[in-house]
Amino acid sequence: MADAQDQSKSAAKKAEKAAKMAAAKAEKAAKHAALPVHGGKKADGGKKADGGKKTDEIIGITVSKTDNFSQWYQEVVLKAEMIEYYNEISGFFIMRPATMHIWNTIRKWFQERIEAMGVEETSFPMFLSQKSLEKEKSHVEGFAPELAWVTKAGDKDLEFPVAVRPTSEAVMYPYYSKWIRSHRDLPLRLNQWNSVVRWEAKQTTPFLRAREFLWQEGHTAHLTEKLAGEEVLEILELYAGIYEQLLAVPVVRGRKTEAEKFAGGYYTTTVEGYIPSNGRGIQGATSHCLGQNFSKMFDITVEDPNDKGKHVNVWQNSWGLSTRVIGVMVMIHGDDKGLVLPPRIAKIQSILIPVGVTAKMSAEDKEKHLKKVDELFFTLKKAGIRTDVDLRDGYTPAWKFNDWELKGVPLRLEFGPKDAAKDVVSYARRDTGEKGTIPIAELTTKVAELLETIQQDMYNKAEAAYAAHRIRITNWDDVVPALDAKNVVIIPHCLVPACEDRVKELTAGRSDESADTPEGQKAPSMGMKSLCVPFDQPEGLVKGETRCLSPECSRLAEQWCMFGRSY
Amino acid sequence: MADAQDQSKSAAKKAEKAAKMAAAKAEKAAKHAALPVHGGKKADGGKKADGGKKTDEIIGITVSKTDNFSQWYQEVVLKAEMIEYYNEISGFFIMRPATMHIWNTIRKWFQERIEAMGVEETSFPMFLSQKSLEKEKSHVEGFAPELAWVTKAGDKDLEFPVAVRPTSEAVMYPYYSKWIRSHRDLPLRLNQWNSVVRWEAKQTTPFLRAREFLWQEGHTAHLTEKLAGEEVLEILELYAGIYEQLLAVPVVRGRKTEAEKFAGGYYTTTVEGYIPSNGRGIQGATSHCLGQNFSKMFDITVEDPNDKGKHVNVWQNSWGLSTRVIGVMVMIHGDDKGLVLPPRIAKIQSILIPVGVTAKMSAEDKEKHLKKVDELFFTLKKAGIRTDVDLRDGYTPAWKFNDWELKGVPLRLEFGPKDAAKDVVSYARRDTGEKGTIPIAELTTKVAELLETIQQDMYNKAEAAYAAHRIRITNWDDVVPALDAKNVVIIPHCLVPACEDRVKELTAGRSDESADTPEGQKAPSMGMKSLCVPFDQPEGLVKGETRCLSPECSRLAEQWCMFGRSY
Repeated sequence: MADAQDQSKSAAKKAEKAAKMAAAKAEKAAKHAALPVHGGKKADGGKKADGGKKTDEIIGITVSKTDNFSQWYQEVVLKAEMIEYYNEISGFFIMRPATMHIWNTIRKWFQERIEAMGVEETSFPMFLSQKSLEKEKSHVEGFAPELAWVTKAGDKDLEFPVAVRPTSEAVMYPYYSKWIRSHRDLPLRLNQWNSVVRWEAKQTTPFLRAREFLWQEGHTAHLTEKLAGEEVLEILELYAGIYEQLLAVPVVRGRKTEAEKFAGGYYTTTVEGYIPSNGRGIQGATSHCLGQNFSKMFDITVEDPNDKGKHVNVWQNSWGLSTRVIGVMVMIHGDDKGLVLPPRIAKIQSILIPVGVTAKMSAEDKEKHLKKVDELFFTLKKAGIRTDVDLRDGYTPAWKFNDWELKGVPLRLEFGPKDAAKDVVSYARRDTGEKGTIPIAELTTKVAELLETIQQDMYNKAEAAYAAHRIRITNWDDVVPALDAKNVVIIPHCLVPACEDRVKELTAGRSDESADTPEGQKAPSMGMKSLCVPFDQPEGLVKGETRCLSPECSRLAEQWCMFGRSY
Repeated sequence: MADAQDQSKSAAKKAEKAAKMAAAKAEKAAKHAALPVHGGKKADGGKKADGGKKTDEIIGITVSKTDNFSQWYQEVVLKAEMIEYYNEISGFFIMRPATMHIWNTIRKWFQERIEAMGVEETSFPMFLSQKSLEKEKSHVEGFAPELAWVTKAGDKDLEFPVAVRPTSEAVMYPYYSKWIRSHRDLPLRLNQWNSVVRWEAKQTTPFLRAREFLWQEGHTAHLTEKLAGEEVLEILELYAGIYEQLLAVPVVRGRKTEAEKFAGGYYTTTVEGYIPSNGRGIQGATSHCLGQNFSKMFDITVEDPNDKGKHVNVWQNSWGLSTRVIGVMVMIHGDDKGLVLPPRIAKIQSILIPVGVTAKMSAEDKEKHLKKVDELFFTLKKAGIRTDVDLRDGYTPAWKFNDWELKGVPLRLEFGPKDAAKDVVSYARRDTGEKGTIPIAELTTKVAELLETIQQDMYNKAEAAYAAHRIRITNWDDVVPALDAKNVVIIPHCLVPACEDRVKELTAGRSDESADTPEGQKAPSMGMKSLCVPFDQPEGLVKGETRCLSPECSRLAEQWCMFGRSY
């Protein structure tokens, strides 16, 4: 599939290079000066001796989210210690503990739910043979250009080169044929957590597009289309749950058009997100019904229980959710101070920082105060709130505030002698900056409430932004201005692939003012592509009457289709 | 490193081929006859209509563990549905849900404990560059012959081929250099769960030696040798705990000799297991102190906190445990009926099977009885016992018994009208075959107790076998006869690599009667290699006096060293 992003490729590459160089330069300078660029917890610098103010500037994000969204994003994931660029091989990223905590939280949530559905875990080899791959024609065509081929072992050439899996349909389905002998073996539902490799020629971006990424891939087989279809939606709803309930990210549920569906599949359902900063749509996760295409190619049949002697091909699904979800969350919630994490997936939900412990204080008073801080810390931990306390010597409270803001901790708790005198703890919300105090007697209940409020408010804010920028349009001339105003659009469409291609061309490079690419450079504006046909269809489309909105299309509209510039 | 197993390679290959062909043949026959070879839960065959007896024979293991250990093992892992051979590419195996449950139990147990130690999770790319790899000379020499090289992406040659990680030292340590700037960044402790690829030329065996395997790899950096050394042992004790507490497998803790240590490391500690059926030792898991070798090559230094201005190289460890543990467990506990699982890692701990429900019973009585079965099932589940109930129609109880025995379920519970009349449930232990009854009123407590007893008895039995076959020897002439009698030996040794090599030669192919290879074929007997220097040293070695036991060595003995034929 062609991608509108190709247009801005060279500009994008330049931008990434520039961002990387800037980051490398800052880091080198910092290493020599022993100053923390990453805001490392135990980094040597940033002490008062060096002048707190100067350090504060260095650890922060150097560009604003509004001015240069792409560089902002790259700095956030790097400086919040989520990602490290793998300089040895381009297009690969290292997932650091801050990332793995989020991924493991998602994994646990999803695993529990699919286990309850009867999905079992498996682990297939990472390599696939040319022969298996070639069984399904559209499938191999979809993935062939991005396959990484192992051709040598040690210093010997392999007789038959093997490819690293880009997805495991062709790895697994020969065994579905072997294991499924009777309708009693159905449904067969297997899932695996692994990494896959797609050697993208396109621009890579941390989390969103990488040559290797972590994901789960579920592969199931059912007796009927109906049973398969029910599961497709059940899984899609779990994907929506990960976005909405864990990551506080709203999504639109829908079906991909023929042009955008999975290579070799029957139909694809999707949850589609939206990035307010550049008005782009982004595919969140997909749950595919493969129909009987693969079961025919891989010979997966059972005897029809209702018609003895007759063999039928099974109905198959595959569904996957990757670490991309984390990138979407960062893009939506982050701000100019850095990462903003929804409390449910934050490893540290609240950070407790002693303040007002001045040099003038007596050693005794200081000890007494820090003892009280310790008590508060243990009270919170005992209540099951994921809390840390920052007792680092030699750092100003202001430096610590910035450091934890950069890392996105949802709630900051401050405790100084003045708070102690009033039996309160002061707090600051990461998402809104709102400040207040909590009586110590109510600390654990109020903190838990605040965290839930933050989670909900973050979702509501993102949902409001999405709702306001999902525009139903019935006049073609309004389309490009709507895109330029950072909207995605919902239009009546014929759903014919050729028409989609033409729509992409018609909406590309037409605005006078060039648009912001995800890489933060001015470039010719990108054409829009179809994101999904939302399940929740607006009113107003009359079948057999309403026409496809494309000015060059003479067909009738089939459904409302969501289009947008996209990742 | 050379391996004594090479001797028997061609015989072994033939044996594997024969076993595979036999399995394939049986399976093909079964598919055509619609009979379950794998004892599949919902397989079509095995019904009374086909004659229970005939089916019972087919689903079972066709060779005895004593007669042909290697074929027995391959049948068990295949028929108990733990493993499927990946026929597309040789040397690779599919891990099925029965395996993944065990691996996930181990993973959870270990993960909780390393998290408590402060180890954080990470995920590095699966590829490494030639340049990184070459930094540590012995390391690259150790792994180069087994590296899988990606040389092409799509149809384009890569400018710089990349290798799939065989282990991640060379992938990770460039970033340790970047992230560790101060002694305050120490200890840095990261772990990842992934798969690695070592393109073995040797015979592969499910779990024990595969070209790709799942494992965890921990990589840590410390300020001092002492701190690194403490962690090495702490992790080794966790590895021993996985074997002893979860898998009911006894191990000997010790240190590898220079000849057998990790390529590029400083010293290697190990837990060593023992397979009674062929008297072979098997390496269980290793925890390495890498010393400062890698930190020098990768430039990982900090300023010495006790000597300002002076830079010191950090001390590093790496430690890994793989799915091999599962193979060791199968080999030790399995019997001629199939798998025998220790209760703590069994997905199904007890299987409840209604019996005595005959055709003569009235529909009403039958319903009443099955209702009671259901009640028992829920009582057990509610008590947290992992239980399933086998209500499959059309299978004889005898067929079901065999099926669950094949799959290793630790405890079978039978409930028939006679049991109901006496308010008891009958049981049969998988490990000993012991039968008895449990009053229904005491069901949950007694079942829980029985499961713990089974766990303990399985361990004790294996421990007794290991203890009886770990022979201290001080007379060289006793060595080969001891090996032939399926022992591993503990001898005074100089620990010099050249002497170890010679000992291997001296003990190879010398017995009149050829020994049993792991592949179940008669072949020239394998020489012994050093397994470890046990931490628990026997009495009787006088330093400066006791001589190395090798008849061709004139050196003094350093320590008691455990040698054996081995995997």
